[in-house]
Amino acid sequence: MVKNKKQKGTYAERELVKMLWERGFACVRAAGSGSGPLPSPDVIASNKTTTLAFECKFFSADYILLNYSQIAQLVEFSQRFGADPWIAVRYEGKDWRFLDMARIRRTSGENFKVSKSFAYEDGHTFDELLERYEKLSSVQSK
Amino acid sequence: MVKNKKQKGTYAERELVKMLWERGFACVRAAGSGSGPLPSPDVIASNKTTTLAFECKFFSADYILLNYSQIAQLVEFSQRFGADPWIAVRYEGKDWRFLDMARIRRTSGENFKVSKSFAYEDGHTFDELLERYEKLSSVQSK
Repeated sequence: MVKNKKQKGTYAERELVKMLWERGFACVRAAGSGSGPLPSPDVIASNKTTTLAFECKFFSADYILLNYSQIAQLVEFSQRFGADPWIAVRYEGKDWRFLDMARIRRTSGENFKVSKSFAYEDGHTFDELLERYEKLSSVQSK
Repeated sequence: MVKNKKQKGTYAERELVKMLWERGFACVRAAGSGSGPLPSPDVIASNKTTTLAFECKFFSADYILLNYSQIAQLVEFSQRFGADPWIAVRYEGKDWRFLDMARIRRTSGENFKVSKSFAYEDGHTFDELLERYEKLSSVQSK
């Protein structure tokens, strides 16, 4: 069965949830993220010490646009929840990359633009993302 | 439009999410809770200091049965995530009640049985649930 883009995105998010479980996090995909009146990330994960909220984008064009309200809602949700916000992007056929919120570029309008090349040059791999937090928690526990 | 039981349950969960937002929590409904291979509560909420995971049950019969694996998965998820687990029940036409995990009764089989009368006599109201945590955090911050 050929999957459409939305199905592929859902499938990719489920894979991310599974990867996080395998690394010790409890994790859920949010229902109806982006469709309701309240802010909601796509995926939320915690292992008690580290809590992460992800806005996920699956794409197959040269770049993706994130609109300002998506970013603002991710930040608002994360601040209330006590989570670190991340933009998780995955180009079709490649692995997930995790983008620092501070490093994505705003276009002339209200959007943020992430190119495939930027995502795969500048983004963290899944292992790099988790190592970053493992280092942080080992410093904090000293 | 007449809603079926599943739709009423979804609607009731959305209302719970809204109530939690109005009291300062960030909150999501989980996608496909109970249908996937990994544990997932129905609703997860946090305000940084208090993190709550809810298994939600909407019912219109005299009692509801919760199976053992639902309870075990709620506890497993909550321990990993760093959340307090709660059974949230709502009888059609009445308000939500929140049940202490330790006080629900196991039946002869692998199930837990919650009667309507037990839920509304023994369960906490929404205000009581939140007051309990507000007291806890004010003691901890002294």
